Amino acid sequence: MYSFKNDYSEGAHPRILNALMETNLVQEDGYGEDRYSLEAIGQLKQRIGRDDIEIHFLAGGTQTNLTAISAFLRPHEAAIAAHTGHIMTHETGAIEATGHKIISIEVENGKLTPAHLKEALDGHTDEYMVKPRLVYISNSTEIGTIYKKDELEQLKSFCEKNHLMLFMDGARLGSALCSSLNDLELSDLPNLVDAFYIGGTKNGALIGEALVICDASLKEDFRFHMKQKGALLAKGRLLGIQFLELFRDNLYFDLALHANKMAEILKDEMGKEKVKFMVDSPTNQVFPILPNSLVLELQQKYSFLVWEKVDSEHSAIRLVTSWATNENVVWDFIEDLKRLLKKYL
Amino acid sequence: MYSFKNDYSEGAHPRILNALMETNLVQEDGYGEDRYSLEAIGQLKQRIGRDDIEIHFLAGGTQTNLTAISAFLRPHEAAIAAHTGHIMTHETGAIEATGHKIISIEVENGKLTPAHLKEALDGHTDEYMVKPRLVYISNSTEIGTIYKKDELEQLKSFCEKNHLMLFMDGARLGSALCSSLNDLELSDLPNLVDAFYIGGTKNGALIGEALVICDASLKEDFRFHMKQKGALLAKGRLLGIQFLELFRDNLYFDLALHANKMAEILKDEMGKEKVKFMVDSPTNQVFPILPNSLVLELQQKYSFLVWEKVDSEHSAIRLVTSWATNENVVWDFIEDLKRLLKKYL
Amino acid sequence: MYSFKNDYSEGAHPRILNALMETNLVQEDGYGEDRYSLEAIGQLKQRIGRDDIEIHFLAGGTQTNLTAISAFLRPHEAAIAAHTGHIMTHETGAIEATGHKIISIEVENGKLTPAHLKEALDGHTDEYMVKPRLVYISNSTEIGTIYKKDELEQLKSFCEKNHLMLFMDGARLGSALCSSLNDLELSDLPNLVDAFYIGGTKNGALIGEALVICDASLKEDFRFHMKQKGALLAKGRLLGIQFLELFRDNLYFDLALHANKMAEILKDEMGKEKVKFMVDSPTNQVFPILPNSLVLELQQKYSFLVWEKVDSEHSAIRLVTSWATNENVVWDFIEDLKRLLKKYL
Amino acid sequence: MYSFKNDYSEGAHPRILNALMETNLVQEDGYGEDRYSLEAIGQLKQRIGRDDIEIHFLAGGTQTNLTAISAFLRPHEAAIAAHTGHIMTHETGAIEATGHKIISIEVENGKLTPAHLKEALDGHTDEYMVKPRLVYISNSTEIGTIYKKDELEQLKSFCEKNHLMLFMDGARLGSALCSSLNDLELSDLPNLVDAFYIGGTKNGALIGEALVICDASLKEDFRFHMKQKGALLAKGRLLGIQFLELFRDNLYFDLALHANKMAEILKDEMGKEKVKFMVDSPTNQVFPILPNSLVLELQQKYSFLVWEKVDSEHSAIRLVTSWATNENVVWDFIEDLKRLLKKYL
Repeated sequence: MYSFKNDYSEGAHPRILNALMETNLVQEDGYGEDRYSLEAIGQLKQRIGRDDIEIHFLAGGTQTNLTAISAFLRPHEAAIAAHTGHIMTHETGAIEATGHKIISIEVENGKLTPAHLKEALDGHTDEYMVKPRLVYISNSTEIGTIYKKDELEQLKSFCEKNHLMLFMDGARLGSALCSSLNDLELSDLPNLVDAFYIGGTKNGALIGEALVICDASLKEDFRFHMKQKGALLAKGRLLGIQFLELFRDNLYFDLALHANKMAEILKDEMGKEKVKFMVDSPTNQVFPILPNSLVLELQQKYSFLVWEKVDSEHSAIRLVTSWATNENVVWDFIEDLKRLLKKYL
Repeated sequence: MYSFKNDYSEGAHPRILNALMETNLVQEDGYGEDRYSLEAIGQLKQRIGRDDIEIHFLAGGTQTNLTAISAFLRPHEAAIAAHTGHIMTHETGAIEATGHKIISIEVENGKLTPAHLKEALDGHTDEYMVKPRLVYISNSTEIGTIYKKDELEQLKSFCEKNHLMLFMDGARLGSALCSSLNDLELSDLPNLVDAFYIGGTKNGALIGEALVICDASLKEDFRFHMKQKGALLAKGRLLGIQFLELFRDNLYFDLALHANKMAEILKDEMGKEKVKFMVDSPTNQVFPILPNSLVLELQQKYSFLVWEKVDSEHSAIRLVTSWATNENVVWDFIEDLKRLLKKYL
Repeated sequence: MYSFKNDYSEGAHPRILNALMETNLVQEDGYGEDRYSLEAIGQLKQRIGRDDIEIHFLAGGTQTNLTAISAFLRPHEAAIAAHTGHIMTHETGAIEATGHKIISIEVENGKLTPAHLKEALDGHTDEYMVKPRLVYISNSTEIGTIYKKDELEQLKSFCEKNHLMLFMDGARLGSALCSSLNDLELSDLPNLVDAFYIGGTKNGALIGEALVICDASLKEDFRFHMKQKGALLAKGRLLGIQFLELFRDNLYFDLALHANKMAEILKDEMGKEKVKFMVDSPTNQVFPILPNSLVLELQQKYSFLVWEKVDSEHSAIRLVTSWATNENVVWDFIEDLKRLLKKYL
Repeated sequence: MYSFKNDYSEGAHPRILNALMETNLVQEDGYGEDRYSLEAIGQLKQRIGRDDIEIHFLAGGTQTNLTAISAFLRPHEAAIAAHTGHIMTHETGAIEATGHKIISIEVENGKLTPAHLKEALDGHTDEYMVKPRLVYISNSTEIGTIYKKDELEQLKSFCEKNHLMLFMDGARLGSALCSSLNDLELSDLPNLVDAFYIGGTKNGALIGEALVICDASLKEDFRFHMKQKGALLAKGRLLGIQFLELFRDNLYFDLALHANKMAEILKDEMGKEKVKFMVDSPTNQVFPILPNSLVLELQQKYSFLVWEKVDSEHSAIRLVTSWATNENVVWDFIEDLKRLLKKYL
């Protein structure tokens, strides 16, 4: 049984484990004040091309979202998110647990536009309603789509005019930036969003997200918030060492490129067989629509999520590739699928 | 410069890193449903000798405290803690941030007694005050002392009679259970407390605490609370693999025994030199009282915390030993100290 | 300018002010333990026909909703509400501020059905999502519709089978129970919902809602929650005296009947003129759809809310009647409207 | 049985009820936007002598404390309070329920000094602890003492130098400002504190506290916070009308003067009999220390709180006077006490 269930099925890229091995007995200060974390922060600032940003390492996506959003908002302020947004759907009310409503916007392809934001603002006009204040977007989104540079520019411009913060969940930022359709650089982001994070967990790290705070007004006392939310690891080195390795050269992007390439093979080959997709996703998640009986048979050999029912006979499944996906297995999968398509179509 | 600052200055015990290496490319389900976590839970249940307990792995102590305590309490209920308790002093209001007051009790040696609990109950008698409901203790405590079995029995008995839950922070449980003064077994704990955790971070793991929920009424839906607080790691295997290794044989206790032994050498040798201690702590934290000028000179070669001012000429310092403490350095330290004592006394 | 903006534009029914006058200098205990509050509770229990319910008086609707819902739910549990529900739209995130998500369900006429609840349950199936636990309904609803007995029975039955609590916001319960379409008695409610409240503020009291907790498991320590949320008035007598007066005889229902009768005149007479309505509401809120220019002219003499744009030429307005609405003014309004309809149609 | 239990045993001053009567059927906007509230705010601003302050009316003390403090603080920030402070002891954890720790300082006479604040700051030095940010004081305090002008100036000066806000709970501000020892004017307060409130409930109103926000940075969006906490009354007129009446002339101060005068008679006459006091309180709370058996006999005729045990034979009781206290009864009480003192001493 091979798993295409998610991009965190394996451990970490071997270079990361090696880095942990090599540094293992060096004594360091705790809570992110170790030399590796500091060095990793310096390296990332250089990579991003900005020295005035603040970077913190946290363990996972939900933790990063809840720590940042609750730090950034006052009690009556709300986040705006796509109805498919991770904070809206799959974080067990983590944001609300910190006291903040999420204004959910029905969207088509996982992405918010200025028109969506306007809709949220128009619906929240006085003190009997929460005050929309932070816009939560994911890149790549929960269904694999990405934001183009001009889309972000438009969002940013709308946000600036309307006293909104723009926050980008980058749990799968690697895959987004390495998409063939992408036109963003890491160094563009501080100009386009007020804060974002660079996801490690889903791109080859054991754990770890690098939160980048771009807007100066959001930096103050951030480590207090991290500690309060249980997000300051005693052995913060564990995060620093990993990011240091991921961005020492191009490893972070190489891993994402591999994941995307594996997804592209899946899409291309399925496309040749006239398979349709729930959404056109240029990253490491693929959502083919297949006959239910075929899905059942595929599940004998591969594990993946059945994402949604399309009609009484068909379902969209989700195939996720990663830095660790074995290309041979991808081709085996394609072979198996072709065979089954003949049988079931 | 050698550090006695804390017990999380190094990475992890090499066997743990090896275990991570060996399992690295095996595909597993996420969020703690991997085979390693399940196996580690089974192993721990066997070690504890109870099958009706529930075990969850979390990343760190503050996270475990806030997730458990907020899950266990209703909004108007409060925790009782020693004024030195970690949740009271060093977690940036993490418990209050989940909505709960901590009733602080002034104590002598870091430990709560039934008399302390009675004091808290007597001071909280009606609906204009919070309702004391959970007793938070640490073992070993924040100043290195431990609870004896009969002390816990008395606490437990008082708690049962007074509708209080007893929760043990075990960030340093290894050191407590391996203290020469200890008379508790791991298997005693489910009879003595309603929930406790087995600290990994401070005893050789990279990260990780194993929360053991003993009281059946506290188990329901606990994973929801973990996810909501950002405490469900996508790669939960990282925690499972470590605990599996720590309790595969006696590694967890061997590491704590080493830490304690190193502390004992420090205490014994300093005792021979008539050094006095702030507190008599039978675990891996040692609090000698030394002349300020001597402290300054020691700091040229060793790093440690200056814990508190004792008088205008003396301070108590904190020396922490761990699984990784080098015995040779301990003896060097003793040598250096003896020399300095001659100079400054 | 006469106001049809809401049902809290005036002070209180004169009998209530008289009761406050008469009791004014009697010394009483504070915080709802005065004789009037106790007597009012006894009287209400008799009226409801149940001695095993618990009754608390709170100041207003938002306060009652947030105090009750946060007391009833554990941190990971969520409320389900219609997208038009008051807690979802007009309470500035009061429920989320206590830590709980509201699952919003798109509805037609302000009302939830078992099918809606099933939709919410089907969408929340594991620990990565909040756990739906409390169903919030309003009677009458925010757009004036009411629940029939069999509709509540179906909801209750679904809730019982699915471990859901049913909570009824009764800010306008008087108007609902006095609707010509209503088939519910006050005494039916404890069998149909787990908790509800009897709104005073919008039916002739100065302030005050009587929260009735029917489910035994929800009663424990409720006064603690009230105090914590700032909802225990020092002079609780202010609430007790009012409810005592409202339910001493039929005053509460007489006031609601008057409000409904005034609304009925408005509907009937507008209906005769072929005016269409946004929703068919059998209580004290009326939502006629009128030409925008007519609305503008009406606003010269009457104040009311423009509820929503219907098309480029028409808007629905909201007219609210109350215990204090002057019947003569209602007829004047109808005359004016008829005149304007001739002009604008 | 006559009650000296508290200053909210009766209803409201008759002029207030008359004002409610007279305005009763006037139609007004809801939620504090009625003409009476607006007029009352204007009148208070004039009385305070500042136009740049912002004033909001809330229902009670706990509600005002929790709404203001949670609006003013960011999540990691804490309040500093005397261990006798109302928010620390008698509000069921209302502040913690909004997420904030209260740093409790042991004090002698209910009052905080700069030395106390320094102690709190010295104990909170890094991100592992909450950040002290708001100083909560009460005037008069919970045990009847008051702040002199120079004491407030010293606090204010310390706060300004240390980035602390100064917040004054004025539930009994009337009694404080009318104390014979007082040297403060209402108009001094905006220069001395960042926010304070003028308590109505304990000085002749049915309900109501007037929160005055002096620091410009604390004003933004305050009505959002009120609505979210259930503190915006639909019939806000109820609060406005009362404050309008209380400050139309000198009524507010006349009522407080009467309360203080009654307390002074009690103190003077008991002093003549050599009765000792737990604390020297120059306001409307008196704390005589009496033999237990005398206390028991007094309780046959008068109700009051037994405040604390002084020794095995004596207790301090609390006698509270108010605007409504009957002077004849005060003299009766003195007579009875003298008689009992002869019997028991």
